[in-house]
Amino acid sequence: MRPSGRAPDEMRAITIETGYTKHAEGSCLIGFGDTKVLCTASVEERLPPWLRGKGQGWVTGEYSMLPRATHTRGNREAARGKQSGRTQEIQRLIGRSLRAVVDLEKLGERQITLDCDVIQADGGTRTASISGAWIALRLAVSGLMEQGQIKDDPITGKIAAISCGIYNGTPVLDLDYAEDSNADADANFVLIEGGKIAEAQATAEGATYDEEGLMRLLRLAQIGCAQIFKSQDEATK
Amino acid sequence: MRPSGRAPDEMRAITIETGYTKHAEGSCLIGFGDTKVLCTASVEERLPPWLRGKGQGWVTGEYSMLPRATHTRGNREAARGKQSGRTQEIQRLIGRSLRAVVDLEKLGERQITLDCDVIQADGGTRTASISGAWIALRLAVSGLMEQGQIKDDPITGKIAAISCGIYNGTPVLDLDYAEDSNADADANFVLIEGGKIAEAQATAEGATYDEEGLMRLLRLAQIGCAQIFKSQDEATK
Amino acid sequence: MRPSGRAPDEMRAITIETGYTKHAEGSCLIGFGDTKVLCTASVEERLPPWLRGKGQGWVTGEYSMLPRATHTRGNREAARGKQSGRTQEIQRLIGRSLRAVVDLEKLGERQITLDCDVIQADGGTRTASISGAWIALRLAVSGLMEQGQIKDDPITGKIAAISCGIYNGTPVLDLDYAEDSNADADANFVLIEGGKIAEAQATAEGATYDEEGLMRLLRLAQIGCAQIFKSQDEATK
Amino acid sequence: MRPSGRAPDEMRAITIETGYTKHAEGSCLIGFGDTKVLCTASVEERLPPWLRGKGQGWVTGEYSMLPRATHTRGNREAARGKQSGRTQEIQRLIGRSLRAVVDLEKLGERQITLDCDVIQADGGTRTASISGAWIALRLAVSGLMEQGQIKDDPITGKIAAISCGIYNGTPVLDLDYAEDSNADADANFVLIEGGKIAEAQATAEGATYDEEGLMRLLRLAQIGCAQIFKSQDEATK
Amino acid sequence: MRPSGRAPDEMRAITIETGYTKHAEGSCLIGFGDTKVLCTASVEERLPPWLRGKGQGWVTGEYSMLPRATHTRGNREAARGKQSGRTQEIQRLIGRSLRAVVDLEKLGERQITLDCDVIQADGGTRTASISGAWIALRLAVSGLMEQGQIKDDPITGKIAAISCGIYNGTPVLDLDYAEDSNADADANFVLIEGGKIAEAQATAEGATYDEEGLMRLLRLAQIGCAQIFKSQDEATK
Amino acid sequence: MRPSGRAPDEMRAITIETGYTKHAEGSCLIGFGDTKVLCTASVEERLPPWLRGKGQGWVTGEYSMLPRATHTRGNREAARGKQSGRTQEIQRLIGRSLRAVVDLEKLGERQITLDCDVIQADGGTRTASISGAWIALRLAVSGLMEQGQIKDDPITGKIAAISCGIYNGTPVLDLDYAEDSNADADANFVLIEGGKIAEAQATAEGATYDEEGLMRLLRLAQIGCAQIFKSQDEATK
Repeated sequence: MRPSGRAPDEMRAITIETGYTKHAEGSCLIGFGDTKVLCTASVEERLPPWLRGKGQGWVTGEYSMLPRATHTRGNREAARGKQSGRTQEIQRLIGRSLRAVVDLEKLGERQITLDCDVIQADGGTRTASISGAWIALRLAVSGLMEQGQIKDDPITGKIAAISCGIYNGTPVLDLDYAEDSNADADANFVLIEGGKIAEAQATAEGATYDEEGLMRLLRLAQIGCAQIFKSQDEATK
Repeated sequence: MRPSGRAPDEMRAITIETGYTKHAEGSCLIGFGDTKVLCTASVEERLPPWLRGKGQGWVTGEYSMLPRATHTRGNREAARGKQSGRTQEIQRLIGRSLRAVVDLEKLGERQITLDCDVIQADGGTRTASISGAWIALRLAVSGLMEQGQIKDDPITGKIAAISCGIYNGTPVLDLDYAEDSNADADANFVLIEGGKIAEAQATAEGATYDEEGLMRLLRLAQIGCAQIFKSQDEATK
Repeated sequence: MRPSGRAPDEMRAITIETGYTKHAEGSCLIGFGDTKVLCTASVEERLPPWLRGKGQGWVTGEYSMLPRATHTRGNREAARGKQSGRTQEIQRLIGRSLRAVVDLEKLGERQITLDCDVIQADGGTRTASISGAWIALRLAVSGLMEQGQIKDDPITGKIAAISCGIYNGTPVLDLDYAEDSNADADANFVLIEGGKIAEAQATAEGATYDEEGLMRLLRLAQIGCAQIFKSQDEATK
Repeated sequence: MRPSGRAPDEMRAITIETGYTKHAEGSCLIGFGDTKVLCTASVEERLPPWLRGKGQGWVTGEYSMLPRATHTRGNREAARGKQSGRTQEIQRLIGRSLRAVVDLEKLGERQITLDCDVIQADGGTRTASISGAWIALRLAVSGLMEQGQIKDDPITGKIAAISCGIYNGTPVLDLDYAEDSNADADANFVLIEGGKIAEAQATAEGATYDEEGLMRLLRLAQIGCAQIFKSQDEATK
Repeated sequence: MRPSGRAPDEMRAITIETGYTKHAEGSCLIGFGDTKVLCTASVEERLPPWLRGKGQGWVTGEYSMLPRATHTRGNREAARGKQSGRTQEIQRLIGRSLRAVVDLEKLGERQITLDCDVIQADGGTRTASISGAWIALRLAVSGLMEQGQIKDDPITGKIAAISCGIYNGTPVLDLDYAEDSNADADANFVLIEGGKIAEAQATAEGATYDEEGLMRLLRLAQIGCAQIFKSQDEATK
Repeated sequence: MRPSGRAPDEMRAITIETGYTKHAEGSCLIGFGDTKVLCTASVEERLPPWLRGKGQGWVTGEYSMLPRATHTRGNREAARGKQSGRTQEIQRLIGRSLRAVVDLEKLGERQITLDCDVIQADGGTRTASISGAWIALRLAVSGLMEQGQIKDDPITGKIAAISCGIYNGTPVLDLDYAEDSNADADANFVLIEGGKIAEAQATAEGATYDEEGLMRLLRLAQIGCAQIFKSQDEATK
């Protein structure tokens, strides 16, 4: 019934290639099926002005799609001179999500920027970004610890994100573009390993959903994130 | 226990003054306690280019805070030359929410813009905007129907929004600024009269929440929106 | 003869509601008939870089119209990414006018920003802004004096502004929109209580005027400002 | 008493070099002492969208200072990405002033842009721009008439502008930079040959002025513009 | 003597992975050592306004570096709101170079945009972009020919680009970052297979060069481009 | 055969008027036939942040065309809110070229900005800008030396620039607009007196050129620059 022939609770294949770029302190190319996002973590010893001298660090996210990551070419945001509302919404979500599993005082007075650049899009780019950004962050922080720049691990847990939605009346996990563009409802969950929720965002598109629908989507997300946590574990061992 | 002395499921006083400005086709000044938002609905007979000639209309939202709506003066976005990510995120939410209760074909080839300008802020400005925008929209559409420009009512139901959150470990309804800035989790729900959910957004701030926490927040929101639906009803009779 | 039936030297009703918003150090909603402007004074203890360390303060103005303050909806300047020439011209005029009655050394090293946001427009928004901004400034400065932060009153006098013009060949006072959009000449005067002129701006629109016309407009403005000074007096007692 | 040794009602030398650039339909380099402005009139057969098909033309002005026209180098507005409020205010004034002496219907469906670029500044650049722009416009329109593109002369009269102000308590004509930066009051008048006023703008700087002061400034402006009209006449014969 | 141990006329390893993204009509990831650029060709059936209805097509280029393609993270141009002068210079060069080997009339009324996004930078990103863009273009055009949308091949030849420079007094080919940042002179050549030059740009950095130096750099470029032409040939067979 | 009737290696008349503006520390109006560029050198005692405290100065260039310098009026870049890629490319070239003949340590901790504003354009504006900027720089530096602010002359030689190209199959020197817009190849050379090359940029337009063509263009440039060096010499004596 799903265009891809997947079962309702079946994820796409997760692929993770760590160390994808040589300059970043941590990086990976993460794939959920045909969605491919390059996530890099950049460590800088300077903080935004409003945080200086407060004995803590900062974690922030930036997001972009290459113009031809999509079916039809999109305009380059740098050429248009501003980032779209969608881009800003996503990069705020990435930063907020990652900060949910970082002890900013233990991080020390430094900033880590998580750049998520979508190389190819087939649905679920924001959730792939968050899941991959955690890996880049983990690798960068482990590097800082090996160099003795950080003593206590500031990362308090694993975080992963997945989309799910109601497609043709059925709740399904990990929507690809064909499903996403026709879903009745669309949700993104950011979950912390161990059962906690960092973010839940569910939007009705045309059709609406009720309390039970929201619960069913959350449970699908729990299934999906369990698999991502496992993949993150393997990638960062 | 709440700074305001309210019970956990107690809303602030809702005040609605319809027809607040004389030029808009529909308008109200809506207040939730000290939060005051001016909502206007403007009807225009031209559509954005990508919608022309498709036999349907459009509903969109814009949002802004006056510079001194808040405790300390914020910079004017027009002077800085761009809207913040927060502003864009909110105005996308307003438009999406209102479109969830409008049949765009019945609306006909016209656009209604819902401007939500925060006169005074004390928490919950985005949810007050949505609840007030529905009133402005209802008044504008009723006017179009009275003038015979629209035959079948394109509004399919009432929509309202409210914030809730976990404050000092307790789920509470309708957060004011004192609570909002110290909440462990913060959620905004956009509900449709009759039990459906249009949007659910829940974010952990510091602390996280679990499935049961999400459910309890949703139930508080249902209590709050029931009161808003009643107020909307009285205001638009 | 005037669309409103007013006599040539008759002002619209002046309404002033002080303390309109709770966060600003001084505020009022001022109305000249259907023109309504929210004026707030915000006190900040930091100065623009070019004024620091010179033993004086600064007073500046900002101006904006809500998108639907007018008959047809205008674009939001923050969305367009820049302020119009008209907006900038008006906010320069507001700042310059208020500085004409402030001793910046007595104000001390602080900045007061006068935000004038037009809620509803029916002609004369810039002059209403100046007249209302004086009230907001007066209230803010009196507050600083009561708190002992300023010793000597830095406000040297009252300032008020009014528009006048030549409509159907007759000089008239306090133009509303219906007159303003059809006037042969349009003037704005900013007067200081006691007979001095701070600003005079008179523009021919279509028809031109001569020396005598300019004098007659100035005398109408003197009549109008006398009434505004009285209203300011009552509002700030 | 004046830094330049001029009498209170004495103008600086006016120099006009017509045909200064070869591409523009009309042009001149106008000088008032050390203030030099290049004014060009460009005729285009297309109109701004809001004027098309209304059987009339348009006249507009643009203004800029070369970065080193002034004592200390100013930032290039194109590099900063926006025009200052001052620039916008001046170019609105130039356009409005010139339109006061043009019959837009006789001009036909074409736009004439008057570019005023300040090569060297020593006070009075906006008034020199207006006085020079009239010459460029006159030359361009005469060219269109010679080519038979316009039948009836759309220019209804001569227009000129001059600054005056109160310097050390004395009203003086045609302020140079040394006076302008220390004047108690500063006024710009745009006058039409024959005694009419197109624009009057008088601003108190520090000191204020009264009704009589305004009149005295206007009379100085009449003396100055009479000389400019004569120079315009010679230049365009 | 070269930091990498290469001989003066020795290129870095060229790697080309065609079909790197699934949506673009043509694409490759091209590598010159550690420099990696993703080049995509996007075919659109609409032209920029100034080219419509002239019976010809257009080829244009866009260029960007991912923020962490470099040793230290650079600001995202979309976030800063404008493209740097360097970016614009490079994308103008890419478009101009590719158009040198395309018959725009045979291409027909369509536009091909060549997006060159630098994934990892180690010197020579602009020349890698041009060499890779040709491959993406070749693949896209061959696709259009197979689909019967173009009859006669509009591509008139191969084009490739390489940098060379004077490093420690010796002319060397294909500079990496370590050399580029310390070179006495830096040149980029864009050559067409068969001996013609499309672009030559040589800049002295500190030291200057003479006629003979320019010739020696050109000859190194000819050696380098011969190898690139071979690699392009293999990649597009 | 050339539209102007000039011999292939014949320059247009060079005109130089030094001291063209009174405020700049050095200035000239340079003409190559009908191309006229105003070049000013502004000395400032502050440096860009990244250069402070390094014991050296900086030389930079800015470039602009007046809107009606050209046959048809161009948009004002300040009004459009950004500088074109072409403008940025040219001003980077001006700065880089002038720095090639300045010892930045001997200049001391100050910045010299070379503003090149095109008053009238007829081809070759960027090369005229460089040749004229050298004169403005020379005059400004000589002034600093006379005032004792600089001891050792930081200018290490003369620099000049000229365009040449292939027109109707023949290499020609100093292209005017009629030639430039129809040339098969277009080159700009920046040469240092004594035989060294600072910049060589040669672009095929339609037709391409080979190694011999490049050499012939370079030799024409050497002929042209020899004349410019002589004119620079006379102008700055």
